[in-house]
Amino acid sequence: MLSNNDRRSGDKTAPAIQPLPAIRSLDELRDLLKRLPGPDLQAEALAAARDSQLTKPAGSLGRLEEIVLWLCRWQGQHPPRMDRPQTCVFAGNHGIAAEGVSAFPISVTAQMVENFRRGGAAINQLSAALSAKVTVVPLDLDRPVRNFAESAAMDEEECVAAFNAGAAAVDPSASLLCPGEMGIGNTTAASAICHGLWGGDPADWCGRGSGVSSAVVERKAALIARAAERHGPALHDGLDVLRILGGREIAAMAGAIVAARLLRIPVMLDGFICCAAAAALHDVDPDSLAHCMVGHASLERGHQRLLRELDRKPLLDLNLRLGEGTGGVLAATIAKSAVACHNGMATFAEAGVDGA
Amino acid sequence: MLSNNDRRSGDKTAPAIQPLPAIRSLDELRDLLKRLPGPDLQAEALAAARDSQLTKPAGSLGRLEEIVLWLCRWQGQHPPRMDRPQTCVFAGNHGIAAEGVSAFPISVTAQMVENFRRGGAAINQLSAALSAKVTVVPLDLDRPVRNFAESAAMDEEECVAAFNAGAAAVDPSASLLCPGEMGIGNTTAASAICHGLWGGDPADWCGRGSGVSSAVVERKAALIARAAERHGPALHDGLDVLRILGGREIAAMAGAIVAARLLRIPVMLDGFICCAAAAALHDVDPDSLAHCMVGHASLERGHQRLLRELDRKPLLDLNLRLGEGTGGVLAATIAKSAVACHNGMATFAEAGVDGA
Repeated sequence: MLSNNDRRSGDKTAPAIQPLPAIRSLDELRDLLKRLPGPDLQAEALAAARDSQLTKPAGSLGRLEEIVLWLCRWQGQHPPRMDRPQTCVFAGNHGIAAEGVSAFPISVTAQMVENFRRGGAAINQLSAALSAKVTVVPLDLDRPVRNFAESAAMDEEECVAAFNAGAAAVDPSASLLCPGEMGIGNTTAASAICHGLWGGDPADWCGRGSGVSSAVVERKAALIARAAERHGPALHDGLDVLRILGGREIAAMAGAIVAARLLRIPVMLDGFICCAAAAALHDVDPDSLAHCMVGHASLERGHQRLLRELDRKPLLDLNLRLGEGTGGVLAATIAKSAVACHNGMATFAEAGVDGA
Repeated sequence: MLSNNDRRSGDKTAPAIQPLPAIRSLDELRDLLKRLPGPDLQAEALAAARDSQLTKPAGSLGRLEEIVLWLCRWQGQHPPRMDRPQTCVFAGNHGIAAEGVSAFPISVTAQMVENFRRGGAAINQLSAALSAKVTVVPLDLDRPVRNFAESAAMDEEECVAAFNAGAAAVDPSASLLCPGEMGIGNTTAASAICHGLWGGDPADWCGRGSGVSSAVVERKAALIARAAERHGPALHDGLDVLRILGGREIAAMAGAIVAARLLRIPVMLDGFICCAAAAALHDVDPDSLAHCMVGHASLERGHQRLLRELDRKPLLDLNLRLGEGTGGVLAATIAKSAVACHNGMATFAEAGVDGA
């Protein structure tokens, strides 16, 4: 078991927490992304030292050990904690839904927000199993972002407001953040973001979303090609891509990811749409995602390619394609078990077990 | 939420539970394996019907939905339950350890049993995170099974006794069983079992176990080749292989798996050694594993090939190579979340959400 003098020894030298002030422009965010706080290598070293003494062959807990080092590095403390995970579910509506890209009508976004609030959705059950707090943030649902095939989805003011709303939703006392989303049509927006960032054949970024036919998948690709033609010259970096092709809930997830970094809260990313939000930040500075782990490999076609571009290997691959943060919260359940092992196991000396 | 008349409707037609009487011979077990109870298709149908009404796109919870159907099928009831998972850790010692096939001395087996009993091992922390009961069963640790490169590891009486001890360890009220093991040298025994069942180059079945050098991996392969030459003609089926090349903790896991089937308890298998025990049963009748799911893809080389032979895809792939049941218990954590979704989510009608 942990001795008292191991406790929180990492955060003595960690820089003080700087809560995110609301940003006023995307340029201010561009600047912020280049000066984010780094990892706490002392906390990580304490974790590695303790891990080597635990009653198991070295390395035999595989990715559970990786999770513990990552949590210590970005929480800025040892031992790691998983006592207060937070799920944030952001919801937004999309003008592109008018093109018939989803299996569900746009009315479902607000109905699902009510379902989240009453505790009836999948994310509520998974969060309860993890003892995670659920924060639900609907973003101007009666005012969908504009159809990106016609014009920019958001102007700068709208995008900044959504980003700030996401940042403000993060509980500064959270031990881990799981961002999630709901928004009819937002798989198409995520595909458009990925195409905006990495190009290629639009069809390679398009999948079946909530369950559409292959004809609809083709329609999605055609809309993305049209958007690329219309907006191409304006897409200078990831934040332009986020504003012009994204949506409020996607910008809000980006805001939550950045706020978590400043608050020393590691982030467990969900599937395709959540990773598309993260990818917009990655395009400005890849280091901005150093505190993030990818929780789940979505069944959505574009996610596999996105993960190759980000060079990340998800913890889980359970064929989920729901969003809401479900894959991230399931992965956080594994992280909680990893922390239980690290903090609770006996050392070779304590247990009187002969080492290797 | 579930209405009252959904509750346990599956088990009205399920056959009565028949606890496993101690078997007296391997032939009796051979006979038993060919007349195991089948799935409860009515309980499965109730689960599928409810799943289609939950507030999510059809199929979007992927393998979580598969887990729920599987649990209902083999628990013989709907709704599924995960209130009483059980971890059984069996420990045994191996004569083959005298050949220097492990990074740890044989004394570690008994020391780890004490660690399991005091709650200091990885499996204790993971089981606690799942609220699973841990049952620890050491099997004649002061009497290692014989070195299989020299003679048969067990005679029939010893093998039957170990099998019965494993069967007796299963709690008839458990909702899910996670069998695990500890035994210095037992990765080599598992490799020998796989080679006995499927043949091929012994080296293809040998890996680094608790962390040995490649020279030791070569030594393991040579021992297995020697055993094949010595015992080949006696290896008529999986139960011969289990007795001659296995160990008490491996036979005990086989016993627990069979007892669980008779008690209507689904089984979440762990990694290489646990699956080798299961494979011995599979060789007699593949249907004997229909109530089992593979929890985790071990880093141990032989496990990948074993899974191809069994045609199973594990739930998790987290680079674990510890044994003890750790991979199975982590996977059971996912199963618990799957059940929470199925039993707790609102239907489209309850939530007032427009369906697809």
